Amino acid sequence: MSFAEPLIARSRRLRNTPFTTRVEASGVQAYTVYNHMLLPTRFRGLEEDYWHLRKSVQIWDVACERQVQIKGPDAAKLAQMLTVRDIRKYDVGRCGYAPVCDDDGLLINDPVLLRVAADCYWFSISDSDVMLWAGGIARSLGLDVEISEPDVNPLAVQGPLANDLMAEVFGAAVREIKFFRFVPMRFKGHEMFVARSGWSAQGGFEIYVNDWQLGGELYDALTAAGEKYDVGPGCPNLIERIEAGLLTYGTDVTRKHTALEAGLAKYCSLDAGTDAIGLEALRVQRDRGLTRRGCGFTISGQRVPAQRDPWPLIIGGKQVGSVTSAVWSPRLNTNVSLGMIAIDHVAPGTKAMVVTSAGERIATVSEVPFPGAAQR
Amino acid sequence: MSFAEPLIARSRRLRNTPFTTRVEASGVQAYTVYNHMLLPTRFRGLEEDYWHLRKSVQIWDVACERQVQIKGPDAAKLAQMLTVRDIRKYDVGRCGYAPVCDDDGLLINDPVLLRVAADCYWFSISDSDVMLWAGGIARSLGLDVEISEPDVNPLAVQGPLANDLMAEVFGAAVREIKFFRFVPMRFKGHEMFVARSGWSAQGGFEIYVNDWQLGGELYDALTAAGEKYDVGPGCPNLIERIEAGLLTYGTDVTRKHTALEAGLAKYCSLDAGTDAIGLEALRVQRDRGLTRRGCGFTISGQRVPAQRDPWPLIIGGKQVGSVTSAVWSPRLNTNVSLGMIAIDHVAPGTKAMVVTSAGERIATVSEVPFPGAAQR
Repeated sequence: MSFAEPLIARSRRLRNTPFTTRVEASGVQAYTVYNHMLLPTRFRGLEEDYWHLRKSVQIWDVACERQVQIKGPDAAKLAQMLTVRDIRKYDVGRCGYAPVCDDDGLLINDPVLLRVAADCYWFSISDSDVMLWAGGIARSLGLDVEISEPDVNPLAVQGPLANDLMAEVFGAAVREIKFFRFVPMRFKGHEMFVARSGWSAQGGFEIYVNDWQLGGELYDALTAAGEKYDVGPGCPNLIERIEAGLLTYGTDVTRKHTALEAGLAKYCSLDAGTDAIGLEALRVQRDRGLTRRGCGFTISGQRVPAQRDPWPLIIGGKQVGSVTSAVWSPRLNTNVSLGMIAIDHVAPGTKAMVVTSAGERIATVSEVPFPGAAQR
Repeated sequence: MSFAEPLIARSRRLRNTPFTTRVEASGVQAYTVYNHMLLPTRFRGLEEDYWHLRKSVQIWDVACERQVQIKGPDAAKLAQMLTVRDIRKYDVGRCGYAPVCDDDGLLINDPVLLRVAADCYWFSISDSDVMLWAGGIARSLGLDVEISEPDVNPLAVQGPLANDLMAEVFGAAVREIKFFRFVPMRFKGHEMFVARSGWSAQGGFEIYVNDWQLGGELYDALTAAGEKYDVGPGCPNLIERIEAGLLTYGTDVTRKHTALEAGLAKYCSLDAGTDAIGLEALRVQRDRGLTRRGCGFTISGQRVPAQRDPWPLIIGGKQVGSVTSAVWSPRLNTNVSLGMIAIDHVAPGTKAMVVTSAGERIATVSEVPFPGAAQR
């Protein structure tokens, strides 16, 4: 029996992106599939990609972050129903994490929401078909909205030199874009949104590329202009995202966890009095007290193996949680990991036994981002 | 630039199945991802797998056919709303293709529906999150149902010797199961549903394995008992499914096609007077007349290359459709393909030019299943 990485069978059901030909020319080593679309996961190697991301600047094909567009007279009403965050004061040009829950407060998706017009919102989604959830609600309540997936394919520029590279291509004005704001910028005369956001702690931008053909040209322009900044192809990096404490929906957090258990309390406007689906359940959970919560852990010993199943966390002979993502941090010189643990044990410094596929180790609850893991 | 098959990055977000360890021990060559889960796509090679499927019997890990369970006092009402097929007379033990559409008649999923109890239905889904669609509708209409994804992982046994192999493991009674019926059968004393169904034209069964641990043992038992029947691991086969005219949701048919355009008219009970979502739109479309429809095509010349993008179909200098799946049939000695074409050109024998990535060829509209492609 082999646990080596298998091939992914080419299939048109696994959608290409406008950048796929470039990504392949750049030597992509592996993909995953996200929202029925290809997402690169490795170029030069996990650790090489990690160091490069922290030091210079990378171009990421994150077209799989699909947009669920909600447009029409009832768009504001529906968008607010869909997220437990209070977004009533979001002006056009604002974006933010906006957890989507069901009536039990269980997480359906943890998207970034963009208000793109007075009557138009984009939920830039993680890996689940939010369009079906939104559509089922809208049609059943008779809301006056159109829900669609526009031909918008995000391209991220991440890393400490992201400002410099973006300024070369879009002009110096990109430097002025504030965190979690987006503005229309021009490339070859064509307007598209550029946001200061992205799935790393290194800083950077997400470009909401709204023209398939132009996507490839933009990728090439960034590559050419970035030569002096040691630009390279990249992608969300397992080491960097665990160090930063970024939980992945579908891995660390699933439909079986509430937004509070997922550690998203700061994005849940529990007392805002919105009509958000799931808000009441989350308030009840807060008032009763959480029983578990997402946490970071360091894991003792040598490099842990690649993880296939959750690893149980044991205290006093009882399972109190599990580790769901783990990797060796070559910079912190220890294994870093994310998981979920019973609320009695969330204090940093708490020790548990973790049963990895390479035997038992000591897991120690850590703050996230992991100390020493902040930007540069 | 390389179009070789890339690696798929191991990730816990791409869920294993109860059979993954067995599938890997059996030498799986490639996977795809389907409903956030691994689906094997090749073992000994596309053509070897094809010939073997037609001649003996295969075990397929199709756990990715997830069940959306709808249970409760309003289950019958919601299930009927969700599909344009009239399922009001489905008794317990009946299953059938049951297209799920939105209010515009556009296809959301083409699942198999099982009535598993008076107040309980399973939609055994293709690749989209039907649970979110069903959940959004149920909560908004205040229906009294519970919607869940039970721990049920289908294992298919397909091929001309499927009856013989299944009788060895489940007893002779499996031979009596009628097409698109399912009955509870016992394996090691544990009851699970066995249906005569499956995603090939070779006949066989789908076992709705409802115990994760027992799943591996069942796989092993089928493998052991099947030795005399030349059993082997297998999976839905591109050649066989195109020959059989089985369109894939996400490839040949998408959210942009109605159930009628997808060629599913026989599963659409347009005049049944149910409350099905999308029925009215489909009736209007029928009355106005379709403008395009799914079709089979043979393609002239040598073996076509693996397809990355739809191939345009041209008649009289104008694009009239496209080919979305194509493969060489080693048995029919021609390329067979599926696609969509304008309604004026659906008559078998109609010729069009198809612009493949290996140049222009002649596409000829064919009946599906392709003549000569029926079971043995």
